[in-house]
Amino acid sequence: MTVRFGVLGAGRIGQVHARAVASVPGARLVAVADPVAEAARRVADAWGCDIRSIEEIEKSGDVDAVIICTPTDTHADLIERFVRAGKAVFCEKPVDLSLSRVRDCLKVVADTKATLMVGFQRRFDPDFRALKAAIDEGTVGQVEMVTLTSRDPGPPPLDYIKRSGGIFRDMTIHDFDVARWLLGEEVETVQAAASVLTDPEIGKAGDYDSVNVILATASGRQCTITNTRRATYGYDQRIEVHGSKGSVAAENHHQSRVIVANGTGYTRPPLLDFFMTRYVAAYAAEIAAFVEAVEQGTPTPTTGEDGLRALALADAALKSVAEGRVVKVSEVLGG
Amino acid sequence: MTVRFGVLGAGRIGQVHARAVASVPGARLVAVADPVAEAARRVADAWGCDIRSIEEIEKSGDVDAVIICTPTDTHADLIERFVRAGKAVFCEKPVDLSLSRVRDCLKVVADTKATLMVGFQRRFDPDFRALKAAIDEGTVGQVEMVTLTSRDPGPPPLDYIKRSGGIFRDMTIHDFDVARWLLGEEVETVQAAASVLTDPEIGKAGDYDSVNVILATASGRQCTITNTRRATYGYDQRIEVHGSKGSVAAENHHQSRVIVANGTGYTRPPLLDFFMTRYVAAYAAEIAAFVEAVEQGTPTPTTGEDGLRALALADAALKSVAEGRVVKVSEVLGG
Amino acid sequence: MTVRFGVLGAGRIGQVHARAVASVPGARLVAVADPVAEAARRVADAWGCDIRSIEEIEKSGDVDAVIICTPTDTHADLIERFVRAGKAVFCEKPVDLSLSRVRDCLKVVADTKATLMVGFQRRFDPDFRALKAAIDEGTVGQVEMVTLTSRDPGPPPLDYIKRSGGIFRDMTIHDFDVARWLLGEEVETVQAAASVLTDPEIGKAGDYDSVNVILATASGRQCTITNTRRATYGYDQRIEVHGSKGSVAAENHHQSRVIVANGTGYTRPPLLDFFMTRYVAAYAAEIAAFVEAVEQGTPTPTTGEDGLRALALADAALKSVAEGRVVKVSEVLGG
Amino acid sequence: MTVRFGVLGAGRIGQVHARAVASVPGARLVAVADPVAEAARRVADAWGCDIRSIEEIEKSGDVDAVIICTPTDTHADLIERFVRAGKAVFCEKPVDLSLSRVRDCLKVVADTKATLMVGFQRRFDPDFRALKAAIDEGTVGQVEMVTLTSRDPGPPPLDYIKRSGGIFRDMTIHDFDVARWLLGEEVETVQAAASVLTDPEIGKAGDYDSVNVILATASGRQCTITNTRRATYGYDQRIEVHGSKGSVAAENHHQSRVIVANGTGYTRPPLLDFFMTRYVAAYAAEIAAFVEAVEQGTPTPTTGEDGLRALALADAALKSVAEGRVVKVSEVLGG
Repeated sequence: MTVRFGVLGAGRIGQVHARAVASVPGARLVAVADPVAEAARRVADAWGCDIRSIEEIEKSGDVDAVIICTPTDTHADLIERFVRAGKAVFCEKPVDLSLSRVRDCLKVVADTKATLMVGFQRRFDPDFRALKAAIDEGTVGQVEMVTLTSRDPGPPPLDYIKRSGGIFRDMTIHDFDVARWLLGEEVETVQAAASVLTDPEIGKAGDYDSVNVILATASGRQCTITNTRRATYGYDQRIEVHGSKGSVAAENHHQSRVIVANGTGYTRPPLLDFFMTRYVAAYAAEIAAFVEAVEQGTPTPTTGEDGLRALALADAALKSVAEGRVVKVSEVLGG
Repeated sequence: MTVRFGVLGAGRIGQVHARAVASVPGARLVAVADPVAEAARRVADAWGCDIRSIEEIEKSGDVDAVIICTPTDTHADLIERFVRAGKAVFCEKPVDLSLSRVRDCLKVVADTKATLMVGFQRRFDPDFRALKAAIDEGTVGQVEMVTLTSRDPGPPPLDYIKRSGGIFRDMTIHDFDVARWLLGEEVETVQAAASVLTDPEIGKAGDYDSVNVILATASGRQCTITNTRRATYGYDQRIEVHGSKGSVAAENHHQSRVIVANGTGYTRPPLLDFFMTRYVAAYAAEIAAFVEAVEQGTPTPTTGEDGLRALALADAALKSVAEGRVVKVSEVLGG
Repeated sequence: MTVRFGVLGAGRIGQVHARAVASVPGARLVAVADPVAEAARRVADAWGCDIRSIEEIEKSGDVDAVIICTPTDTHADLIERFVRAGKAVFCEKPVDLSLSRVRDCLKVVADTKATLMVGFQRRFDPDFRALKAAIDEGTVGQVEMVTLTSRDPGPPPLDYIKRSGGIFRDMTIHDFDVARWLLGEEVETVQAAASVLTDPEIGKAGDYDSVNVILATASGRQCTITNTRRATYGYDQRIEVHGSKGSVAAENHHQSRVIVANGTGYTRPPLLDFFMTRYVAAYAAEIAAFVEAVEQGTPTPTTGEDGLRALALADAALKSVAEGRVVKVSEVLGG
Repeated sequence: MTVRFGVLGAGRIGQVHARAVASVPGARLVAVADPVAEAARRVADAWGCDIRSIEEIEKSGDVDAVIICTPTDTHADLIERFVRAGKAVFCEKPVDLSLSRVRDCLKVVADTKATLMVGFQRRFDPDFRALKAAIDEGTVGQVEMVTLTSRDPGPPPLDYIKRSGGIFRDMTIHDFDVARWLLGEEVETVQAAASVLTDPEIGKAGDYDSVNVILATASGRQCTITNTRRATYGYDQRIEVHGSKGSVAAENHHQSRVIVANGTGYTRPPLLDFFMTRYVAAYAAEIAAFVEAVEQGTPTPTTGEDGLRALALADAALKSVAEGRVVKVSEVLGG
């Protein structure tokens, strides 16, 4: 069987997903939609697909599934529209910046019994999967401490930051998802510190660029997350899990495996520059997993609920910074 | 413009090249040929192309180029046939095991003015290209010593070994090509040592499984090559170039970047298991380079002459082992 | 000039310091004192010095300086006694577990104008010094984030834990000192999480075995500290400093630089097993620095004040865990 | 028991050995001799020993053993003199540059039944010992290929080169000894290539600066040695042993374990600059092994015979370069 795709949005992440579809056997790219004609054209030329409007894709009988790569504030509406149109939906995180809007949207999805997968591509990175597999095989014994280091090469444009919901909801959210994936227990408490160190304008926009978070579970497992918006050495993405029997870590991806040695020392190149290059394999594996779930009618490996819970941790971190105290997730999530 | 491909032979390396074509924008896989119906079907299903016979592909107006992935003893004949049919030809190394047969075949190619590229995929590996780029930028100054380490995970079947032309022509030939590529001068002398250490049957078949070679150029640059047919830790592929200003090295590819630490130590996984996984990116880049040469009518980055010269070094190495002395390449190559 | 030493206490750390004195040109080991005759004898035999009582060393004209390696609850008294006897004093951390007792002791030292150096050996580790030098040279630009990872190979005996003042005062105190050394600004706030994950007995004793701490300075620089009492892979001691222009990290010390490769992967040995082996060079450099200060009458590179401030951070961390909130250091330290 | 030492020669290597003696429990430095008063004084001050003449040390009742650190052409004579004086003798390699003079000297030693240890410090390097131990424990199965990389940071003065006996006898000799130690079988054949690439003056002096050697044993085990006299990145000292079950490698020693990351990449410092820093631990362990042999009357772990055989390999390599052929060791060694 083949799953036929429409990609909504041909910007940076839309291009990443179009390439991913092209590289997955059993997935076919049928159409792309984007209000910017040139962007749509670039994708169509590269991978040999049609250009259609969102409305046309909604009605296309030859499209089984869509990948939503449009701006965040359109996600929830498009999810609702396409699940009602009977399409399987893959949506880039987040569903929405508001917990309650996410809840409403997930209710619509549940009512239609449609397939919705929310993109947390890190879970599909081959290295991180190997790390997770090692944990699942008992290699480290019981997980005790998870250490996540994520640094962006540079801050996004200020305009983006203002609409992003803040660093915890925009950037740390990926780490919150990874933490939930690896800790083996739901997070119970959140505490965080946040500063503005790279650009005062970020502070004026009400956001931070440098944060540390400590998560804890009921049994006392802990996770620390370090995020900064600027790393001169590239896109820093590391995971380390310490447990009762040992530890497992996933190393960074450098631009090549070439090392130059001279009087200055031994130099390997900087890290891959950002998510589009660092997570090429992860995006492909993510689409392959989505294809498999659609084909076989099985649950997707990441769900709307995962999106909701990661967002709740972001809200709790923000509250912790504001109030200078440990925040229980239940305060934010209710229940 | 798009280059439309036929793949001749759907075995291990044919599948590798079919995938490479599928992943290169501007390349389209049109047809595959293989006497084993199942092998052809697998490629056709995976990448959505036709199954045709070699004769049909020869006459196909919608095929611009072929990739020859058939057994070695058919290479020279197929090259001649397809260049005469006006197709651009990409042929896996070697053109033939006999220097004189290679010479004759290259003459036919020259007469037709056709495009022939002989596959030495290592030159297209992203890491090795980065290493070469560093040399070309003067990073190591003048090249003085090249060290090549190539170890296969395990010996091929004895049947294969008997038809292979021996380890120097079958395995070391890739290193000879890399040596020529990196030394910056043609090789003048060859000396080699060879043993049978893994399986006495290999010796009975008249071949070796463990060899070391020293190449030297007119100005005294040297290259050492170490080959073994069995490495329990995977497919070992390393290059190191030492020069007047420093050195540059390309590291191995492990199965993942995950490290497990416990009382045994810190363990990263074995190396990728063989060329099909290790050189995925190289094969794709190689086809992309071929596509570019075909599209633009420019010379291919590797040529029939490169195939000829690498084979000559293999012959010289064999002679050196037999006679216990340093052999001049001119003894073998003439001229 | 030569500085002549008496070592008080010939236990594990006393032996370390005796060896350090022996390896420093310009330092001579004159006497060792220990109520356990066998312990004193071992040191005397190994390095060729006298065995004397503490009282005898106090009165010895041929002893210029003492190294206090006795149990923690004797430190403050011995410091006072030996500074009054006119000796230069090197004391293992901590001066005392009580901030007020430390204050009183430092007052006595100040009154005598004696030399007191409190041992924080990590500052003298050659790797950490190289890291600090890189920061001081501006290599990373402005320090933004410090990440300290310290894991012991296994918990100390429960008896020791009960007298230790708890993990923050006993183990994290070294990280607090390193944080102060590297942040370039005094710490203003402390928040911490703490669990018992390795042995419930530790919890019953009122202590923790797994902690994470976030420190912040007035300008928003942050430091995270991760501590656990059990790491199957050895004594884990890492520092990473991220700044505006780059980062600098110090890697762990493995038992050797030997790597074994086979079907299991590539394995380097576990880490050095504990501080006696990991910090051999640091202890020697620390004594060399003390000798230099004594010889030249200059201030010691680490002081009683450093001991006091590190202890204050430990007290703040404990308070943070107890109250589930961010604690200002001024709450603990006064002033 | 304590072994009391006299050190003959207080130059670079004499200082290294004086420090080694000082750091070994059970070894005492009693006297140093050097015609340069200042050199002798420096050692005496640093480690608190007497200054005596060679004649005085020869007659000293309080000296059990001497370490010969004088120029090469005095070694054989001094060995004979001191073994006749009843001292245990440790001599830096080589005993002499002439095989026949070495043979004569070893005969004198044998006649006196004295203890003679010839210094091949690499065998005592903790990393190389760990590598050897792994081999001995069967970790790599049967040894098949040994790869030795030794590069000096820069060539010695031309005057030194002229008296050195050439690169094979002066520099490669250490690798020849390591090869013999690791191969597990005596070397049967030698082939080598040699060039002058760094400085034509070296060629005019009749020597080479860049060499590659292939050694082979009767059963077909092979060893490659790569030497160059100039490496901008420091003192490059690597061993890799490949066997039937896996491989084991010893990595280089960098100046620190600190890594700086920025837009240029990830840089660790150059290698330790030369043998005096790189082999500090090896020199100490070597003296400790000598002390143990002297104390217990057991054979020394390296012997005069080891010195002789390494020299024979050097002579064979030189002959191979001169004659462009594989040379049997028996041609050089006789027997």
